[in-house]
Amino acid sequence: MFERYEALSKKLGIDHSVLLGPMDLVSGGKLAAAVTQAGGLGIIGGGYGDEAWLREEFSQAQGARVGVGFITWSLSRQPHLVDVCIEHSPVAVMFSFGDASKHVEKVKKAGILSICQVQTAEMAREAVAYGADIIVAQGAEGGGHGIACGTLPLVPNVVDAVGDKVPVVAAGGIADGRGFAASLALGASGVLLGTRFYASEEAIGHADAKRRIVDCKGGEETIRGILFDMARDNVWPSPYTGRVLRNDFSDRWIGRERDLLQHLHTERPRFLEARANHEFDTAPVIAGESAGLIHDVRPAKAIVDDLVREMSEILGYAGARGPRDAKAAA
Amino acid sequence: MFERYEALSKKLGIDHSVLLGPMDLVSGGKLAAAVTQAGGLGIIGGGYGDEAWLREEFSQAQGARVGVGFITWSLSRQPHLVDVCIEHSPVAVMFSFGDASKHVEKVKKAGILSICQVQTAEMAREAVAYGADIIVAQGAEGGGHGIACGTLPLVPNVVDAVGDKVPVVAAGGIADGRGFAASLALGASGVLLGTRFYASEEAIGHADAKRRIVDCKGGEETIRGILFDMARDNVWPSPYTGRVLRNDFSDRWIGRERDLLQHLHTERPRFLEARANHEFDTAPVIAGESAGLIHDVRPAKAIVDDLVREMSEILGYAGARGPRDAKAAA
Repeated sequence: MFERYEALSKKLGIDHSVLLGPMDLVSGGKLAAAVTQAGGLGIIGGGYGDEAWLREEFSQAQGARVGVGFITWSLSRQPHLVDVCIEHSPVAVMFSFGDASKHVEKVKKAGILSICQVQTAEMAREAVAYGADIIVAQGAEGGGHGIACGTLPLVPNVVDAVGDKVPVVAAGGIADGRGFAASLALGASGVLLGTRFYASEEAIGHADAKRRIVDCKGGEETIRGILFDMARDNVWPSPYTGRVLRNDFSDRWIGRERDLLQHLHTERPRFLEARANHEFDTAPVIAGESAGLIHDVRPAKAIVDDLVREMSEILGYAGARGPRDAKAAA
Repeated sequence: MFERYEALSKKLGIDHSVLLGPMDLVSGGKLAAAVTQAGGLGIIGGGYGDEAWLREEFSQAQGARVGVGFITWSLSRQPHLVDVCIEHSPVAVMFSFGDASKHVEKVKKAGILSICQVQTAEMAREAVAYGADIIVAQGAEGGGHGIACGTLPLVPNVVDAVGDKVPVVAAGGIADGRGFAASLALGASGVLLGTRFYASEEAIGHADAKRRIVDCKGGEETIRGILFDMARDNVWPSPYTGRVLRNDFSDRWIGRERDLLQHLHTERPRFLEARANHEFDTAPVIAGESAGLIHDVRPAKAIVDDLVREMSEILGYAGARGPRDAKAAA
């Protein structure tokens, strides 16, 4: 279990295989740098792909060893952004949601690691076949877009499919050392966390959004669906849906998608205005079920430190200082 | 972690805190007895409540120390079945889906343990408030009815809510020692497995149903919804939905519930006939996402043995012989 964990840390050149989820518009350069400085791997949220934003956030990372992640089907409309990334020599480029074969090929030629996020074992096999160096198995508990399989059965399923070839990182529903330890027990080599880092001091998100994550009592206060994608005119290709915190808007329209479509001419402008004004009774906070386990907004370093300490206590892991420290000490 | 696990084993008077999910019409007396004889706790699937079936399955258990479980909202229509259970002195009576306060009171007066299965932390608080001795936290990955929260974040959420008062058992998505170990790392005191034991030699289910579980490649080949409940005229109270393996019937009707309602006059008789004839292209196999991790139909004892051995290897647990053996050896 710990051999796998340390091997991935070594592969990424970090102390702890704790990865920042590349949350669009939330995982900026400052947060990514903070996670890396804490011993994990910060991954900038490249999202749908915006060159100016991307350059700005690489600059905000101030030279820290970070990665960057994209929504693959959107990135494929402007593949030159991969070259923009390569200019900045990221530790890894992560691709989620769609066929990343061409991007993976380009990244690998540049000597950069490719991380592919998948939601089924079959998707993992495909990504490894086209060259993915690391697989993230994302369960349905995760915030933002995904599919339907729960993390606990998904991770061993993906490990059985590709674990003999590449490291598998668990994502979806992990917020503390218990989820971290459980992921390693399931066969993962590391973990990727979004929501927990959203509620960090360094995340770009609005303070009210972070407070709603802290206030969330459990997964039942989140929903997975396409309501918000409908409202903002950004419905994803099937079978992807998105998880967000429940709010007044979702309570009003859930199960009434047809009615919402009829009222989009008035609802959409209201929705977009609410989003611009950070009014989260209407605008969504994109977060996962792990919000129920998050009770404070903290510096990223405190989050990483506690994750590693708790995991080490639960599993009796003595090597928490990590391979980099061990090397330095040798 | 192991103190909790051993304390629950001791409370139940068993070697290993591995519980059989009380699957309606599948977890009969023979399977329950086999799980108990393997060192776990067999729980007969009392389901909706059928007195003759219940008496027959207690008889099939041939005096083995077993429990029995019910669908609470259905049991509440015929509460005398609790007295029928008490006659048979079960180790525990398990209640799922609904307010079990009156049944719990009766069971406790008879000196029998009560187990309440819940799907949110709030439900766990309510059940403990009315006297539940043990809580099962059931994640959305599970087969059959449930709600929407994934096991990995749900279990620590429930442990934080009631874990200082009662033991919490993890359910949903667990099929092997990895899920077992992960559950203990999440703070659970034990695990409850349904689908894994469905694919056992002793389960009542049809051989073709068991083969479909073995053939299932992952959670994406299951669905959670109410299609099958609509077809059989047994739609549950909200917010419960049911997970089953995908088949031709679900592929035809999913997302077309309104159309199905229009065609029920022809579809329902077909559906009921298919169910009577074990034609699983139409009739559902009620199973969870862990089906993707199940590759054989085995005796219940082999399943329990492997669960305990794998968990012990992963977590470095040396006490796998269990408190009962330890006592005998002392």
